[in-house]
Amino acid sequence: MRHKLRIIPLGGVGEIGKNMTVVEYGDDILVIDCGLIFPDEEMPGIDVVIPDMTYLEQHADRIRGMCITHGHEDHIGAIPYAMERFRCPIYGTRFTNALIRHKLDEHHLTDVEIVDVDPGETVTLGCFQIEFIKTGHSIAGAVAFAIRTPIGTLIHTGDFKIDLTPIDGEPININRFAYYGSRGVLALMSDSTNVERPGFTQSEKEIGATFEQCFGRAKGRVIVATFASNVYRMQQVADVAIAHGRVVCFQGRSMEQIVKIAQELGYMHIPADKIVRVEHLKNIPDEMVCVMTTGSQGEPMSGLFRMANSTHKLNVGAGDTVIISASAIPGNERGVSRVINALYAKGADVVYDRMADVHVSGHACMGELRLMLEIIKPKYFIPVHGEARHLKMHADLAKEQGVAPERTFIAHNGDVIELSARKGAVSGTVQAGSLMVDGLRNIEDVVLRDRRSLSADGLVAAVVLLDAETGRLLAPVELYSRGFIYMRDNEPLISEASALVYEKSKRFESSEKGEYPAIKTAIKNRLKSFLYDRTGRTPMILPIVMEV
Amino acid sequence: MRHKLRIIPLGGVGEIGKNMTVVEYGDDILVIDCGLIFPDEEMPGIDVVIPDMTYLEQHADRIRGMCITHGHEDHIGAIPYAMERFRCPIYGTRFTNALIRHKLDEHHLTDVEIVDVDPGETVTLGCFQIEFIKTGHSIAGAVAFAIRTPIGTLIHTGDFKIDLTPIDGEPININRFAYYGSRGVLALMSDSTNVERPGFTQSEKEIGATFEQCFGRAKGRVIVATFASNVYRMQQVADVAIAHGRVVCFQGRSMEQIVKIAQELGYMHIPADKIVRVEHLKNIPDEMVCVMTTGSQGEPMSGLFRMANSTHKLNVGAGDTVIISASAIPGNERGVSRVINALYAKGADVVYDRMADVHVSGHACMGELRLMLEIIKPKYFIPVHGEARHLKMHADLAKEQGVAPERTFIAHNGDVIELSARKGAVSGTVQAGSLMVDGLRNIEDVVLRDRRSLSADGLVAAVVLLDAETGRLLAPVELYSRGFIYMRDNEPLISEASALVYEKSKRFESSEKGEYPAIKTAIKNRLKSFLYDRTGRTPMILPIVMEV
Repeated sequence: MRHKLRIIPLGGVGEIGKNMTVVEYGDDILVIDCGLIFPDEEMPGIDVVIPDMTYLEQHADRIRGMCITHGHEDHIGAIPYAMERFRCPIYGTRFTNALIRHKLDEHHLTDVEIVDVDPGETVTLGCFQIEFIKTGHSIAGAVAFAIRTPIGTLIHTGDFKIDLTPIDGEPININRFAYYGSRGVLALMSDSTNVERPGFTQSEKEIGATFEQCFGRAKGRVIVATFASNVYRMQQVADVAIAHGRVVCFQGRSMEQIVKIAQELGYMHIPADKIVRVEHLKNIPDEMVCVMTTGSQGEPMSGLFRMANSTHKLNVGAGDTVIISASAIPGNERGVSRVINALYAKGADVVYDRMADVHVSGHACMGELRLMLEIIKPKYFIPVHGEARHLKMHADLAKEQGVAPERTFIAHNGDVIELSARKGAVSGTVQAGSLMVDGLRNIEDVVLRDRRSLSADGLVAAVVLLDAETGRLLAPVELYSRGFIYMRDNEPLISEASALVYEKSKRFESSEKGEYPAIKTAIKNRLKSFLYDRTGRTPMILPIVMEV
Repeated sequence: MRHKLRIIPLGGVGEIGKNMTVVEYGDDILVIDCGLIFPDEEMPGIDVVIPDMTYLEQHADRIRGMCITHGHEDHIGAIPYAMERFRCPIYGTRFTNALIRHKLDEHHLTDVEIVDVDPGETVTLGCFQIEFIKTGHSIAGAVAFAIRTPIGTLIHTGDFKIDLTPIDGEPININRFAYYGSRGVLALMSDSTNVERPGFTQSEKEIGATFEQCFGRAKGRVIVATFASNVYRMQQVADVAIAHGRVVCFQGRSMEQIVKIAQELGYMHIPADKIVRVEHLKNIPDEMVCVMTTGSQGEPMSGLFRMANSTHKLNVGAGDTVIISASAIPGNERGVSRVINALYAKGADVVYDRMADVHVSGHACMGELRLMLEIIKPKYFIPVHGEARHLKMHADLAKEQGVAPERTFIAHNGDVIELSARKGAVSGTVQAGSLMVDGLRNIEDVVLRDRRSLSADGLVAAVVLLDAETGRLLAPVELYSRGFIYMRDNEPLISEASALVYEKSKRFESSEKGEYPAIKTAIKNRLKSFLYDRTGRTPMILPIVMEV
């Protein structure tokens, strides 16, 4: 009996982040990627957001394995949470797997089966045969998947760009994509991140000229901030630094870890005697020093943030050249801007993306996306890794390249896309969505709503003491406030408010016992309107009624 | 006796926003601009931030007047707060003054003296003679000031660009700048906003081609979101719309108000029969409709936001073309992105700045800034309207144009820059800073700190009841939480925590009276470490100890 191929994105469509896709045929389930997304300003206090994996938990016995395209957080960050819920072997390239192992160790998950797969190799999981195809991206070890299923081949590009002069010397394996394209591809899932940008993404190598120039001119230390996972960027900077007679020093926990892993696995090649620890820098003249650091997004506590705010042992200032080799991820613009201003104020020279070519994207632009569509010529097309507008634009692009709109799916997380050789349709949905992880727990919406309210106007607690026997008020009402107004400066307001609550509560003295909810509501309303009149604000009111 | 000229920025240096400068000679004080800045994500619940005006309050009797360069919020937004603290006449162009009057009316300040001044006219205030010079900016009625003082001329550019084909047909009056430049200028204060951008700012007229193309292709309604104050943009869109046989409808309170004012004062010229109210749109075919709306920054409650979220009576969707004629101000990127995605998801075509030339800046780029420096050839230079990096870059630019670095001042708010014909130096500082306005009050830092903490992890209140006589605990400890965890789902955790606090408090039973601070600290620490161990979070702890 022939089944339909079911493709279910659990994350990563309609958003850039928490990528996770289920591929299903008969009894076999294959999972592609398992990422997280960082919370936005609407989610105060949340650490990370991961896909709702209920569907996979319910069908855990059918999961044959999880294949990972590359080691960025939006592709691997939710793996520990997944492995607490269900188990299956994980397949990735060596560098990707090293990052996954490190992450699982931090969560004390040491018994997960992780299988190293080299680009060019094929893995068989149930009825699926998955070929790992080398691509190019802003991290080492990135691959696409050609997934052979009983009814045709599915290509998932992962995150990719077509860089013909990559730092590692091994460009994307276009011929394998062409091989599948020539034989006929049932469906293509392709990266939509940069679909708004015309042309082709610049090669990583092209920014080398800017580094040459900056290092050539620099009189003092050169400090380069970039993404810790961008092994190629770090290699490129190290090469230029060493050519200019400098040693390199890595700062920031994640960067130090990744450099260690990349050097061990042969993804980076920096001579050991050219790498120095920060403690030894004081013995080396400034013009012989290059520091690479985390913090290109202005993250608090990162290396660059601490340097800009004088809480780092490297006392950055006049004479230093700071290169921010990244562009701000949406939402981080202000943070990056603050760091740049602080560095300027300390007298450092700062070079960043508005001034010079110090960063290139890791994602394919329009030209490369068209090329991929031309090579693959898919029957069905599912744009992924994009917000609503990116998916729509990518669908338009596919139409121009000859994919009929009715065979393109702009999916939502949880959509079940059922494909057969003859027919393709969204046949239904499964549970999908976002789990907000705060510390060690999932957080409910109601708690977030409270946090948003608390952050806007703070809180006022009113404590009312009742005699359990008589229902009489035993003491004046006490008010406590946090984040509302400064109480010491507002004694008259507070005592007036407290008197009002006392009066309001007194009316309940003669009423039946168990009238707490009514007292609480009355206190809340009275206090709310009084404080709004006087201050124009609506703090959260927490009425506390105690019986003695 | 000859005095020194004192220039004191109270806002607008080291930041883009809340522009306010004091110019002082002998007993005479002149104030230039009086703006606000919108709070960033570090200031939850704050409505606006205004300059600390203590210095002016202390010298109110010496203030001869306030001259306003143009009507943007960062130049006029703090006027009502200023007029509650001190009084002086306000001088501006007619359009600027109309916006100021409107703002003062909202604050019930109807007795402020406001004087209309046309470009080309000169105002005498104490020892100062101030010529209003026409410039160009993204709002009508923008001027620069040539301030003649007893020891020389000070030029303040205000916000400007050099647009040689402006929509109103009257370019910036370069010859007046040249007139002063030729006679010798003591000091120049110049807009630094776009100093990072090479070349010259595009003319407002250049984006007309994009509007022509969009209107030419649109089959249904065309909806254009832009800044309410950008009278020229609105005029340009209206001209194209009418040429394409469409009527125009304005949406959003601030836009409707400004259009009314601009039409009355002759800054906009849209035939009355081409403007329709939203109620009448239902009788007009879609292809004959153009809607202009607020919300180009994705602001909640704005016209465009409500359209994107289906809470606006215009049911925007398939067939509609939405043009976002603005670029996102730093900090608004995510909000704008969300609106674009929502519009795409509803099926509308969206055109925005990453795709097409739909916006030009109102600020001078490097080329224009160099030109201004060349024309004015100032003895002293004070870059203004910029963050630290902009001021530094503008100073570098001035150096390249021949202003010696020792005669350039990268100022901080509150710096007193003393100039004489022979000498210029920062001679001291006055009180300056930010006042955070929240509802009707100023807010202290401690309150903001609490709000940030509350927004991250919420609050837990622990109520302990003591016998006033014996110091004994009278009841079990009750815990209340808001924004921390959902209490109903966490009964065991809560009761364990409550028991711990009870135990902790019990140890104080035998101790002296008045030990409250010690009990409170003990409760706080115990609860904090317990909750952190169990949840990984550190909510704010509010210990409430009551005596009966």
